[in-house]
Amino acid sequence: MAEIVSFPDTDRANGLLLRSLRDGVLRLVLNDPPANALSIALLEALMAELEKAGSDAGVRVVVIASIGNVFSAGHDLKELTAHRADEDQGAAFFERAFRLCADLMLKIAHLPKPVIAEIDGLATAAGCQLVASCDLAICTDTSTFCTPGVNIGLFCSTPMVAVSRAAHRKQAMEMLLTGETIDASTAKDFGLVNRIVPKQYLAQVVFKYAAVIASKSPLILKIGKEAFNRQLELPVEAAYDYAAKVMVDNMLTQDAQEGIGAFLGKRKPAWKGE
Amino acid sequence: MAEIVSFPDTDRANGLLLRSLRDGVLRLVLNDPPANALSIALLEALMAELEKAGSDAGVRVVVIASIGNVFSAGHDLKELTAHRADEDQGAAFFERAFRLCADLMLKIAHLPKPVIAEIDGLATAAGCQLVASCDLAICTDTSTFCTPGVNIGLFCSTPMVAVSRAAHRKQAMEMLLTGETIDASTAKDFGLVNRIVPKQYLAQVVFKYAAVIASKSPLILKIGKEAFNRQLELPVEAAYDYAAKVMVDNMLTQDAQEGIGAFLGKRKPAWKGE
Amino acid sequence: MAEIVSFPDTDRANGLLLRSLRDGVLRLVLNDPPANALSIALLEALMAELEKAGSDAGVRVVVIASIGNVFSAGHDLKELTAHRADEDQGAAFFERAFRLCADLMLKIAHLPKPVIAEIDGLATAAGCQLVASCDLAICTDTSTFCTPGVNIGLFCSTPMVAVSRAAHRKQAMEMLLTGETIDASTAKDFGLVNRIVPKQYLAQVVFKYAAVIASKSPLILKIGKEAFNRQLELPVEAAYDYAAKVMVDNMLTQDAQEGIGAFLGKRKPAWKGE
Repeated sequence: MAEIVSFPDTDRANGLLLRSLRDGVLRLVLNDPPANALSIALLEALMAELEKAGSDAGVRVVVIASIGNVFSAGHDLKELTAHRADEDQGAAFFERAFRLCADLMLKIAHLPKPVIAEIDGLATAAGCQLVASCDLAICTDTSTFCTPGVNIGLFCSTPMVAVSRAAHRKQAMEMLLTGETIDASTAKDFGLVNRIVPKQYLAQVVFKYAAVIASKSPLILKIGKEAFNRQLELPVEAAYDYAAKVMVDNMLTQDAQEGIGAFLGKRKPAWKGE
Repeated sequence: MAEIVSFPDTDRANGLLLRSLRDGVLRLVLNDPPANALSIALLEALMAELEKAGSDAGVRVVVIASIGNVFSAGHDLKELTAHRADEDQGAAFFERAFRLCADLMLKIAHLPKPVIAEIDGLATAAGCQLVASCDLAICTDTSTFCTPGVNIGLFCSTPMVAVSRAAHRKQAMEMLLTGETIDASTAKDFGLVNRIVPKQYLAQVVFKYAAVIASKSPLILKIGKEAFNRQLELPVEAAYDYAAKVMVDNMLTQDAQEGIGAFLGKRKPAWKGE
Repeated sequence: MAEIVSFPDTDRANGLLLRSLRDGVLRLVLNDPPANALSIALLEALMAELEKAGSDAGVRVVVIASIGNVFSAGHDLKELTAHRADEDQGAAFFERAFRLCADLMLKIAHLPKPVIAEIDGLATAAGCQLVASCDLAICTDTSTFCTPGVNIGLFCSTPMVAVSRAAHRKQAMEMLLTGETIDASTAKDFGLVNRIVPKQYLAQVVFKYAAVIASKSPLILKIGKEAFNRQLELPVEAAYDYAAKVMVDNMLTQDAQEGIGAFLGKRKPAWKGE
């Protein structure tokens, strides 16, 4: 039987987003079922929590999970549609919504702490983008994924930024052009998720996985995650120039001294840096 | 038994290329067996058909298929070799042939309509490049793929542009350096094809698949395909700046209004835009 | 029973690196068990051998293998740590070590001859980077791979340059953030290795595979490998401009004339160029 993962100090960051912290793992739970739509309110709540998490030494890893059968259905179509009545036919509001959503995805990339998506159910459109944008993703075997904007006349052009950088070109194109849903196993083959687990073990597995990462030095995770995203956009020679410099700086940190010393001395490291 | 897919108005665009249209799906069939070599004449026929298809509102999706056991064997080696007798040893002709072939591949990418490769048999060299360059690809389980130029002293340097953008680096390198043939299942793993179907169902499955895409708004497909190719070559932040703007413009189209309205109203959309 | 692959003129390039040549296949064997650590001495020995191989017409393909249960454990932590006693806390030495290692990986990419990693055992950190940096990789079914620097406070930032260009983003991120070990099958799925063979056949399979490549024209392999790495860093249109030009130049070589002539004449080509 699965161990119950309890996050004792669970509180509502906001009606739409549950927040709990355990052993350095911050768990943010989308709590606007059934769709967990990325409304302005939910996007702002996520941004605010990530902003706080970035500078909170007590948070080492962030998990983004959800309540209900839909991880997230993406943008809130009712909210968008309501603004068609605006004087500018909604242009200003649409810009705000899509900009905020893109900023959230970039915030995840820039956060100095790893972010793990914990998916149980359907992740669609910007919900699928959220999965693709997290550093890592673990889902249940019944989870499904799609970018179906083409079906409703709104091509998933921002989700494609994340999806086309996670999967092969033709695989991303198929999701985008057909709007069809893929299962968890296909999503793993495509590179959208890292691991698939049975539903009853999801929270437990994600927590243990997050705890493994949370046991590393926060400073070293920060150095590594930032370097990963920066070097990936450079030509390979420039990437090596940059990464070799990162390695030198990393070697000169206290945590490298401690970590390598502990490894050579066959003891457990005690991280100093933050 | 498989439904017969009949394209009633089949005609010969050219002796080398069959052309038929059904329900918005334009089917171009390479008809120069046994090799379906990409001679200047066939390349020009394909270019001309794609050019027409781009501005023909009756064409919503393009399928490229072939007659015989070879999808395409790539450049026409006899045609190339004949020009060694030219005053410049063929330099001008070779430039024309390779430029035209590259232009065809870029034409597929720039076409405002999805292009699907329907492969039954061997796709080799520029024939493999054609598969890799199409937005999507569906093949029979007995289809095979290779970039064997290295065997004949002509490295597949233009095919590599498409293949190395579809598959992982080492997988592309293996095809290019060894010249060996991979089967359909490996090609799917590599990301060169999207789906594998039994031969007897190929035309039917491709048609149904194309028809699903043809049922979307042509304007939205155009917006999405163009955005896909443009954003993929940008750094991630610039990609989001661009894609967020595309989303706003897309929201302001009639088809987004119709599509979202139909979705919220649980009815079928009636696309307006072209 | 496996054929014994004997390299008759085996000699020690250096105490740390065995060197043998057979039928155009240069086999370099890391010989500093148990860790085969990439010490300055071993890095320099590899650089020197690759430098010589680049201009030696007798070498057509390079294989990098190892002695013992560890393909390579990466940088020599004891050597690095010893330099913490330097006046600059090791900064100059660390810079030298990481720069030299990056230069070795770039040397492999720039070498005009294919380089194949032959892995039996654990490839970790810069040892995993070495696998990812080779053009091709073949491993035993019991080989394992990881980038565990995060565990010792030294994030694998230079290995990530190679690993994140071989595998999908989330797969690379998982290896880097968790430091966990993946098996051969996962490494193949990720794109880190091309083929998996039983241990008893490893040397034989790699040799036959290398011999297939060594039978191609060295000039054409040089043209193709250089083009591969250059075009992959260009936007697709610039890549085609460049690759089309490479194809024209390639067509004008003697080896293309010979290779295509041999193919059309159904005879074996006799390569001229070097």
